[in-house]
Amino acid sequence: MLNYNEQYQCYTGYIENYLHDRCFCYPNEPQTELFSAMRYSLLAGGKRLRPVFVFDFCHMCGGDWQASVPFAAAVEMVHTYSLIHDDLPCMDNDDVRRGKPTNHKVYGEATAVLAGDALLTAAFSQLAIAPFSAEVRLRAVEVLSNCAGELGMVGGQMLDMLSEKRQCTKQEVLDIQSRKTGALIRASCILGVLAGNGSEAQMKAAEKFASELGLAFQIRDDMLDVIGDASELGKAVSSDADKNTFVQLYGLDACSDLVAKHTKHAISELDIFSDTQFMRNLADKLTNRTM
Amino acid sequence: MLNYNEQYQCYTGYIENYLHDRCFCYPNEPQTELFSAMRYSLLAGGKRLRPVFVFDFCHMCGGDWQASVPFAAAVEMVHTYSLIHDDLPCMDNDDVRRGKPTNHKVYGEATAVLAGDALLTAAFSQLAIAPFSAEVRLRAVEVLSNCAGELGMVGGQMLDMLSEKRQCTKQEVLDIQSRKTGALIRASCILGVLAGNGSEAQMKAAEKFASELGLAFQIRDDMLDVIGDASELGKAVSSDADKNTFVQLYGLDACSDLVAKHTKHAISELDIFSDTQFMRNLADKLTNRTM
Repeated sequence: MLNYNEQYQCYTGYIENYLHDRCFCYPNEPQTELFSAMRYSLLAGGKRLRPVFVFDFCHMCGGDWQASVPFAAAVEMVHTYSLIHDDLPCMDNDDVRRGKPTNHKVYGEATAVLAGDALLTAAFSQLAIAPFSAEVRLRAVEVLSNCAGELGMVGGQMLDMLSEKRQCTKQEVLDIQSRKTGALIRASCILGVLAGNGSEAQMKAAEKFASELGLAFQIRDDMLDVIGDASELGKAVSSDADKNTFVQLYGLDACSDLVAKHTKHAISELDIFSDTQFMRNLADKLTNRTM
Repeated sequence: MLNYNEQYQCYTGYIENYLHDRCFCYPNEPQTELFSAMRYSLLAGGKRLRPVFVFDFCHMCGGDWQASVPFAAAVEMVHTYSLIHDDLPCMDNDDVRRGKPTNHKVYGEATAVLAGDALLTAAFSQLAIAPFSAEVRLRAVEVLSNCAGELGMVGGQMLDMLSEKRQCTKQEVLDIQSRKTGALIRASCILGVLAGNGSEAQMKAAEKFASELGLAFQIRDDMLDVIGDASELGKAVSSDADKNTFVQLYGLDACSDLVAKHTKHAISELDIFSDTQFMRNLADKLTNRTM
């Protein structure tokens, strides 16, 4: 029986190894610069939160979580591509990500655009090769494409961009968050349930869990942008100062309460699953994280 | 019985209507600027060659070609996204595409990046909703992601970029073409066979047909860049003058012969299909097209 930290390391170690050893290693292909750019960002660390959601929701449905690693890789590839494109000069124009120079700073803008495009495309290849029935894999394609697309993550990024120049309502900021960061967390939890052959009721519970926790996570993220320490976060603090953040709309204290409330709502959705201690702990840790 | 032109118009009319009426029309969603940018490029016309390949290969396998329209839309979305990203200032920096201002000229760079991302993502949603068995749709996901990804179209784009500053060998130029434009044409023909429930032998023949015709098509494209008339092509002529083109490597006359040879090879692959007159005509027309 692993404790929380051991289990987290077990999950992240598994996805790290898979991404490192199995993804975009082509010794005989000439476009090495592209593979190098893809791997630079994909292997740049990070919490690997989305793969952990895939693994543990699979496990909580009684599935073999290691079998779900292509699903976990797929969501991490989508997450990574979105970071590469968000960092571009024409978008957020960020120079540092996870404590390292951003992709376009190292490889140039054109290669960064292509590396993002290729990671997004490869995510669907990963779904297709997972060791599950065609129905399960196809449903995963449907979930991921819907959550990542024009109504989900990309739609949220667009709304976020458009909101920069004006004051948003609370409802608008909630909507942007639900798409921009929430949608991919929902996809991760649902893909875990699909991989674990969970029930429709478990699918719904995973979706609600993800929506509540994704919201708590983003509010906490906004708080850390204000109170965090730059070296610990590995990125410039207050880079979002000119945006419509939860902290600006609610204030720091109310944000703390909101994080606690939505985390509690999230955890209440876990009763339908088995062996939920790790996920309860994870939800709690995210509430109190400092980086 | 429709003649060639009538059949081509029947196919293109069907995909135009589908894209116009069924794709990215969301009256109640706020990110209208994103949908508008996606539709701007998706509905900007063009030959719709890839959808026609999907439709007619489905038909030549005895399938109901109208049922394959989500597959046709998927390849057209991938094609459109690749054009939007290729036109970006950090890539080819083109101002005009199909006789109209490029996407980023109208919507700005950031929105153009996102519109491309969303079109690529939506392509996989289209594959998932097609009216075929889960196995067929999943195989379509596999084919499209492989052909569009780091080993296919995006890989070819990367190699093309890297080749701009040096002299390539003929083999290198063939390899770049096979990925950059060939891979998506292969995907289109194979998706048609999948939609038509064709045999494995038909799958192989479609792939070879596409490789030969894609090559003939690209050589013809290079020729038109030299001999074409700007107003007819709807883009600036000789924009590829500094690149490694087939015309530079082989000369115009040899290129004519190559187009004829590869078109003939392509057509020889059609014997395994039924009702092939349209596709034979199409292959011939592409050989002699002036735009």
